[in-house]
Amino acid sequence: MIKVAVLGYGTVGSGVVEVIERNNDQVSGSAGEELHVKYILDLRDFPGDPYEDRVVHDINLILEDPEISVVCEVMGGTGAAYQFTKQALEKGKSVCTSNKELVAKHGPELLSLAKEQGCSYLFEASVGGGIPVIRPINSSLTAEKILAVLGIVNGTTNYILTKMSSEGAAFEDVLKQAQEMGYAERNPEADVEGYDACRKLAILSSLMAGKNVDSEKIYTEGITKITTADFEYAKAAGMAIKLLALGRMLEDGRVLAMVSPFFVSNTHPLAMVNDVFNAVFISGNMLGDSMYYGRGAGKLPTASAVVSDVIECARNQGRTISCRWEAGSAELADIAETEYSYFVRVKASARAEAEAVFPGKVFEAPGREDDLGIFTDVMKEKTFREKYATLGDKALGRIRLL
Amino acid sequence: MIKVAVLGYGTVGSGVVEVIERNNDQVSGSAGEELHVKYILDLRDFPGDPYEDRVVHDINLILEDPEISVVCEVMGGTGAAYQFTKQALEKGKSVCTSNKELVAKHGPELLSLAKEQGCSYLFEASVGGGIPVIRPINSSLTAEKILAVLGIVNGTTNYILTKMSSEGAAFEDVLKQAQEMGYAERNPEADVEGYDACRKLAILSSLMAGKNVDSEKIYTEGITKITTADFEYAKAAGMAIKLLALGRMLEDGRVLAMVSPFFVSNTHPLAMVNDVFNAVFISGNMLGDSMYYGRGAGKLPTASAVVSDVIECARNQGRTISCRWEAGSAELADIAETEYSYFVRVKASARAEAEAVFPGKVFEAPGREDDLGIFTDVMKEKTFREKYATLGDKALGRIRLL
Repeated sequence: MIKVAVLGYGTVGSGVVEVIERNNDQVSGSAGEELHVKYILDLRDFPGDPYEDRVVHDINLILEDPEISVVCEVMGGTGAAYQFTKQALEKGKSVCTSNKELVAKHGPELLSLAKEQGCSYLFEASVGGGIPVIRPINSSLTAEKILAVLGIVNGTTNYILTKMSSEGAAFEDVLKQAQEMGYAERNPEADVEGYDACRKLAILSSLMAGKNVDSEKIYTEGITKITTADFEYAKAAGMAIKLLALGRMLEDGRVLAMVSPFFVSNTHPLAMVNDVFNAVFISGNMLGDSMYYGRGAGKLPTASAVVSDVIECARNQGRTISCRWEAGSAELADIAETEYSYFVRVKASARAEAEAVFPGKVFEAPGREDDLGIFTDVMKEKTFREKYATLGDKALGRIRLL
Repeated sequence: MIKVAVLGYGTVGSGVVEVIERNNDQVSGSAGEELHVKYILDLRDFPGDPYEDRVVHDINLILEDPEISVVCEVMGGTGAAYQFTKQALEKGKSVCTSNKELVAKHGPELLSLAKEQGCSYLFEASVGGGIPVIRPINSSLTAEKILAVLGIVNGTTNYILTKMSSEGAAFEDVLKQAQEMGYAERNPEADVEGYDACRKLAILSSLMAGKNVDSEKIYTEGITKITTADFEYAKAAGMAIKLLALGRMLEDGRVLAMVSPFFVSNTHPLAMVNDVFNAVFISGNMLGDSMYYGRGAGKLPTASAVVSDVIECARNQGRTISCRWEAGSAELADIAETEYSYFVRVKASARAEAEAVFPGKVFEAPGREDDLGIFTDVMKEKTFREKYATLGDKALGRIRLL
């Protein structure tokens, strides 16, 4: 029997217990022996909860119990979660987590600690919720040099952008709606400023590069500046606006990584990824593109991914499951060097000046008289920034084109 | 060092050698030790080929060589391929294959033989070419009860349907074009009659059910009866026509499995899967839907999947990689019991009669005067067949709605 401890009895934690209990036949069958939740660590008590007798408050009970071979860290944050993960790994207990913040921040250290101890640190649920992405990279695309990752990895912002597009509503209004429905947090900064997507991209890019991509060095732009006007132009151009996480290996071995809103053609598969759904494209040098799509969040989907990690640990007792994310740091390229075409929105009165700065395709959106749109030629981000700055307050906004 | 034998030096076989040689750093790194192709078995010689010195004609050389721990069976067919696979497994050598025909026909026997011998029989490349599908089912969706599989699993027919849709061309003309471009075989029966999709569905459904779904019992309908008229109606209705492979667990434990063309709403992600691309949806009871998308065929993508299986064998020497497809046979439901809405095309002159038989939504396609379309209410296939038959030659065709 495999005995498991769950750290944190919040949404994901209670989901983990539920998946293990409700699907126990399947879960234990897959694991090859019975899987049982022995402890649930939380600061709170849960009187009346069907598993209240398993709730404990002292991590040492778990750390010192030799019966516990796998720990699910679903607390979140980088404080106690980091401590407990380290302590568990030091005891040779494998740790499975949904905590992208911790993985992005301390992944390399925790992976190497697991390796030293002959156990595993797994984090399928940290990207794409329940969608299998991390394990396909580590166990299926093993013959591939990964050239690029590209995806919609934050459900909250994708929900907001989808609603802005379908309802013509303003960012603030949709955000409020999303908060009321529980799709966005009271403090939405991590989502809407792109920080959550940035952490997930750091994880995906580190797996791509085979070494650590520091999330703090990733260029990150959120969706707070996207307006209803931008959507009117996007529609007129047959495009969607999506917050994309993009990582690419450059020929010199450096990594280009950025989170940013993009204009995406409606013929691109990512354009049809709506609401809280996520999708990740991975490009390999033999396979080309493969895409993984599904619900990127939610209690049971995320918990299912954590439990699938527990099952992998059960199947691989006494050894470390291999991971592409090795020691060493990747060098990141400055995005000023990258090249894009840009959508630029300018005051209609500045048309001549804007066309002189950006000789490109001018286009209008039905019903908009005070501004107009331009798709620029492809140019370096650095050049674009200089040109764009010359327009001063006649320029109303800009969005990159995928 | 892991020494490998490749059986069959055709398209996939030469791809396997190419992936192992060109990506050797990556492949050997993933495997944990160097991976080397020692033998290539083929009836022919390949003078001038860079690996001609590895070509052998006698399977016994491979079977009797204790250095060979993994065999790639990429010959196709169920004759020699079956013999050689059995013999290799009996010697404790793991076998990795792209041969869906063999997997569909003898999967259970070969899987159980591998288990007895403590080695593995892996077949990632048998469905979806290079797209990871089989391993995600066996290693990632392990906490899930799989409720349904649904996908576009044959690239040739998807290419033909895409061209028929975009060019308004007739089936025969597009087929001829596809044959000239090498996307369809000289004898296209296995693709256009749905047999290839049926074998892949047998594999996916067997993994879903956890026991054998006999491909010969799967209801299979190809695309030869789809006309340009059908596409005119599909477009008028905002739909695509796709050849789908569909497997579903019924509540009583039986399996519903069918390959058939379907009308698919343009808002469904499968509608945007075009050309030779494949996509497979898998529904789990905790995760809901996840989708896997990419190139479903091609030399290097398929070879990459075979090599990823070889790497899994290298990582799991001396043990059997677990597979959801266990012994026992699944009972299949008669599709006469299933319920669908149907698109029916009838002679315009029979409108009144058709509406009496199928009170539903009548609609016209621009420019078509001699016929019209009806979307029927949802009804049992059995009922539908009876009603449809009463229209005799006034009924011009029918396609199920997803």
